[in-house]
Amino acid sequence: MDNYLKMIGQYLDDIPLTKEPRNLYEPVAYCLANGGKRIRPVMTLLACKMFGGNLKEALPAAAGLELFHNFTLLHDDIMDDAPIRRNKPTVHEQWNANTAILSGDVLFAISSQHVSKVPDAHLRPVLDLFYQTVTEVCEGQQYDMDFENRHDVSEEEYLEMIRLKTAVLPAACLKTGAIVAGAPAADQELVYRFGELIGLAFQLRDDWLDVYGDLEAFGKKTGGDIVANKKTWLYIKALDKADKQQQENLIKAFSDESLEDDEKIRLVTSVYDELNISDDAQQKMKEYYALASVKMDRIDLPGEQKSELIAYADQLLNRNK
Amino acid sequence: MDNYLKMIGQYLDDIPLTKEPRNLYEPVAYCLANGGKRIRPVMTLLACKMFGGNLKEALPAAAGLELFHNFTLLHDDIMDDAPIRRNKPTVHEQWNANTAILSGDVLFAISSQHVSKVPDAHLRPVLDLFYQTVTEVCEGQQYDMDFENRHDVSEEEYLEMIRLKTAVLPAACLKTGAIVAGAPAADQELVYRFGELIGLAFQLRDDWLDVYGDLEAFGKKTGGDIVANKKTWLYIKALDKADKQQQENLIKAFSDESLEDDEKIRLVTSVYDELNISDDAQQKMKEYYALASVKMDRIDLPGEQKSELIAYADQLLNRNK
Repeated sequence: MDNYLKMIGQYLDDIPLTKEPRNLYEPVAYCLANGGKRIRPVMTLLACKMFGGNLKEALPAAAGLELFHNFTLLHDDIMDDAPIRRNKPTVHEQWNANTAILSGDVLFAISSQHVSKVPDAHLRPVLDLFYQTVTEVCEGQQYDMDFENRHDVSEEEYLEMIRLKTAVLPAACLKTGAIVAGAPAADQELVYRFGELIGLAFQLRDDWLDVYGDLEAFGKKTGGDIVANKKTWLYIKALDKADKQQQENLIKAFSDESLEDDEKIRLVTSVYDELNISDDAQQKMKEYYALASVKMDRIDLPGEQKSELIAYADQLLNRNK
Repeated sequence: MDNYLKMIGQYLDDIPLTKEPRNLYEPVAYCLANGGKRIRPVMTLLACKMFGGNLKEALPAAAGLELFHNFTLLHDDIMDDAPIRRNKPTVHEQWNANTAILSGDVLFAISSQHVSKVPDAHLRPVLDLFYQTVTEVCEGQQYDMDFENRHDVSEEEYLEMIRLKTAVLPAACLKTGAIVAGAPAADQELVYRFGELIGLAFQLRDDWLDVYGDLEAFGKKTGGDIVANKKTWLYIKALDKADKQQQENLIKAFSDESLEDDEKIRLVTSVYDELNISDDAQQKMKEYYALASVKMDRIDLPGEQKSELIAYADQLLNRNK
């Protein structure tokens, strides 16, 4: 794993960003220096390796997909008016919104450039997948924004939103690695679905951690989604299961601007607890994991070739702790 | 020409945009319905035709380049806080800034998708050119924003800014047509330079028209750039030629917020007139046109094959009136 991270880090560091116009490229370098777990490019390399491909052929596209992910964070942070990303001020805070828009645009262009650096034989399918994924991620972000103003979002709609906003990208990262390795079409599709289901489980885990996670381990203040009135899977599921009184309490807590943060978190969490939402969330994650495992089992490779990717997914979902 | 416009219009109309999420795709459709002169895709088709290529093979990329141009307008209008585009409210005015950012992002993705629909043999060079162009257009926009806060922009810097912001795109449109037609590398380069020089002349003409153009013919109020404190070639050239008193008058007119629009236009234009800036601008356009003609002459094709593109460039620069 360290080796993968080193390859990716080295590749990203070598992208020339200390050039003119400074006001365009400095914010891009600032985003990238911020690090992150590099989950997506690691997935591309793991899938390439699993299917016996040449990692060097997949590396530029892996890095390109990480750059694309950073582009989405940059623009999403403007739209969500988020002040902090990875413990540093966001680009629109550190500079301004115009700088964040334009630096994001050029980062998108740079990401596409690197994604396209696959061998010619794989260029067309990698690009088609990339543009489809970009389009879907934009659709997911739009649904997320639309849902802020709706009070009748169903669980199904929520799951489709997070599928688009967060799950298709890891899926595409895995499939890109598979394409570059020359995997059969059926296996490309299976690894895509595996990634999508792991991505869904990962987002549910994120929703769950925000309420039930440990501040120290997670590095985020617990309850941030509740304070921000973010409609997570927990909230939507709770609203769905709640009786009239509990529904009123939830909606009131989310709309009452006079509430102190701690009190609001306590109120909402108490409804979640009454309804066993934490168990429901863990159950749902397990379901997704089981479905993902079925996809993985059907991939036509010896078990030992799959173990590294499976172990990585387990680690992401914290299943080994 | 009508035939080219019809092909492009038909292709753009067939892109499915009446789909969910509506808040994402409706603004994209709104931009495209707004029309425009379709200069860039026409250039791609003209270059393809000139080099004996198949127009159908160039059409998707031509349309993709027009979509990219529309994407840049959408995001630039947010950054410039422009209320009107082609006689209709801009997207961020009609909806809001977040909608304009995200619809722009998806429009960029859609544009790339169509640019990539060239025959496999031409995919790599077309993409490389496209990403290089996108990056340069972002750089040009950044320089343009940087120049707003500077009072020492040289003519050379200004010309490099408009080269990046506006001239490389028509250049890339022509070269894309040439690539798809299988033109020799030397001719691809020549037609690129032709497009760049015509693009520079076209932007100077735009700067000139803003002050000396006819409201009725041009559809814009004369002096808009002056009212907006936009540093055009005319302003930079005037500052360069002016004596101390004239320099003070210019800078004062641009910084005095108490001035009525008409009075400001009158003051600035009178300095331009004293310095013969209008003649200088026309001279500069002629120079660019002459340089462009040299490039065109060196393209290894019979004159009659070049005449359609030359006539189109003449028409753009209004040389036949």
